[in-house]
Amino acid sequence: MDERFMKFALEIAEQGRGQTGLNPLVGAVVVKDHKIVGFGAHLLFGEAHAEVHALKMAGEKANGATLYVTLEPCNHYGKTPPCCLAIVESKIKRVVVAMLDPNPIVCGKGVNILRENGIDVRTNVLEEEALKLNKHYVYFNQNKRPFITLKYASTLDGKIATRLGDSKWITGKEARLDSHSYRANHQAIMVGIGTVLQDDPLLTCREIESKGNPIRMIVDRHLRVPLDAQIITNKDAKTWILTTDHVNQEKVKELEKQGVAVHQLKKIDGEGILKYLAEMKIMSVFVEGGSSLLTIFYDQGLFNELVVYLAPKVIGGSDSLSAIQGKGIDKIKDAKSLRLVQSTIIGEDLKLVLTPK
Amino acid sequence: MDERFMKFALEIAEQGRGQTGLNPLVGAVVVKDHKIVGFGAHLLFGEAHAEVHALKMAGEKANGATLYVTLEPCNHYGKTPPCCLAIVESKIKRVVVAMLDPNPIVCGKGVNILRENGIDVRTNVLEEEALKLNKHYVYFNQNKRPFITLKYASTLDGKIATRLGDSKWITGKEARLDSHSYRANHQAIMVGIGTVLQDDPLLTCREIESKGNPIRMIVDRHLRVPLDAQIITNKDAKTWILTTDHVNQEKVKELEKQGVAVHQLKKIDGEGILKYLAEMKIMSVFVEGGSSLLTIFYDQGLFNELVVYLAPKVIGGSDSLSAIQGKGIDKIKDAKSLRLVQSTIIGEDLKLVLTPK
Repeated sequence: MDERFMKFALEIAEQGRGQTGLNPLVGAVVVKDHKIVGFGAHLLFGEAHAEVHALKMAGEKANGATLYVTLEPCNHYGKTPPCCLAIVESKIKRVVVAMLDPNPIVCGKGVNILRENGIDVRTNVLEEEALKLNKHYVYFNQNKRPFITLKYASTLDGKIATRLGDSKWITGKEARLDSHSYRANHQAIMVGIGTVLQDDPLLTCREIESKGNPIRMIVDRHLRVPLDAQIITNKDAKTWILTTDHVNQEKVKELEKQGVAVHQLKKIDGEGILKYLAEMKIMSVFVEGGSSLLTIFYDQGLFNELVVYLAPKVIGGSDSLSAIQGKGIDKIKDAKSLRLVQSTIIGEDLKLVLTPK
Repeated sequence: MDERFMKFALEIAEQGRGQTGLNPLVGAVVVKDHKIVGFGAHLLFGEAHAEVHALKMAGEKANGATLYVTLEPCNHYGKTPPCCLAIVESKIKRVVVAMLDPNPIVCGKGVNILRENGIDVRTNVLEEEALKLNKHYVYFNQNKRPFITLKYASTLDGKIATRLGDSKWITGKEARLDSHSYRANHQAIMVGIGTVLQDDPLLTCREIESKGNPIRMIVDRHLRVPLDAQIITNKDAKTWILTTDHVNQEKVKELEKQGVAVHQLKKIDGEGILKYLAEMKIMSVFVEGGSSLLTIFYDQGLFNELVVYLAPKVIGGSDSLSAIQGKGIDKIKDAKSLRLVQSTIIGEDLKLVLTPK
């Protein structure tokens, strides 16, 4: 029975995806005498939490009822007053929680407060599903670094461009759409300056109905980005340039005048970038290439998921560009093994999702 | 009803796979008063056909019965007397045929003879399944060239060896076993001399319970094959060397003394090889590499199926070896598109089957 109501709470939580900014997705359901008397989800960053919506809908029926919530209720004053307070005040008798909040400010404390107030608390109901719902949030809070998804589209033979640099389009429209939904699901999209110079991309989620565009991040060591690049002139999303402190400060100012945030990092390798982004509270990054940037993250093992769109075509040739370059391994046994967690046909292409083993 | 009995005929036909040499797989079922009274399959090259086995089992009950047969009965004296004769003599009243025989010696003639003898004939029942059963036989007879299956095992990034040439093992045991069942299903396995020099392979179906090993064919333009290579010294399968007539005739004699068939072709490009093999009545070839041989067949579009085993690993590097080399295409739009007809997880690897569009 608990599972049934929790499942519904997870479903409504999902509706906030792409709208809650740094906040996790949360759903809540109030049940009295086996009847749902209220439900809610956290919908917008800075606004009411799921529990508050649900309790409000339940009104006086909350008295003596059970509250199902997909994430441990908070006990601290943030942008809103603590949910634990609202729960206690509404005279809820029992609280069922899918997972504890990995955020150290909350973790375990919310549940303790409820118990101290005489509320019966059950935890870890559909925990796995709840962890999945907020995969990026959980990872960021547990590891203090952003969840990194690497993505590339290649032909069957692992090539992302011909020897003349042509790469449009390797995969079909369906695969490109799918890739845009990944964009919408991350806090930032990252590409190398090579990709900007080669393709002048817009890096927005324009091909899907999205609830907002993630930050566009360009790794640009020597600040080569042209002032008329689309990511500079287009204002549909924020743009961050990650560079060093050795670059032309005049150009930095010009970029800043255009509303671009220029971040001058001490170290611009994979670890340096991730450490900086963690400090900036960036929880998830979708790294879309090019091959140099992918190789940096791949070789250093700095990724959580690898999404590959594989087109049933062959580019061939020894001078065409492979997705992962660098020196490569010497012996097969030295290859990092990945786990293939998903393989789906999308349009005419194959989508593979892999995780480090 | 016809479909039900034909389905059984197709199932028993399958049992002869790998045992019938140049002959197609055939199954036959005799049905009288809705009861199966006899069935049989073509089991061994040169021995009794399916119809003969089935009629023998039915005995006198064949009189007035219906015969289901997956392939048009033959009307000519081959290694055995014509089946049409046996059918007429057994007083079968009705014959249901899944597909006409694509072999021009038979095609349509068997069915005509039966009709001329007053037998009611229905054709094209489960034809698609029957065509699939004898895919190689049908293709060879319709096109006068062998059915070519290209196969390679690569990492996710399309690499078949590291920059130091290491390639053992890219895929897991399950994928290698699956690949051996492809060997058993073709009349010949083909590799380039580079693969022999690099890996000294045995090229048998040793890892599966097989009913016989296909011919091992080595494309070796300059007759570089070492006399102590396993494909020469091991006698578990026949070995053919495909070379030119410009090679050292002393070495040809030495190889022939070892029981190896040395075929000296005028032209040793893709077309030349296929033309020669067609003359030699080779119906199907499993081309296993290396990359030069695969590239020849791939670039010239001389293949019917491409089987790729994709390991969830990355070799990376610009000097590692890709499956398809050559010059490669200049523009993505020039890429030959393939059709992805199968995608299956085998062990930890992914198996893809593609056909030309």
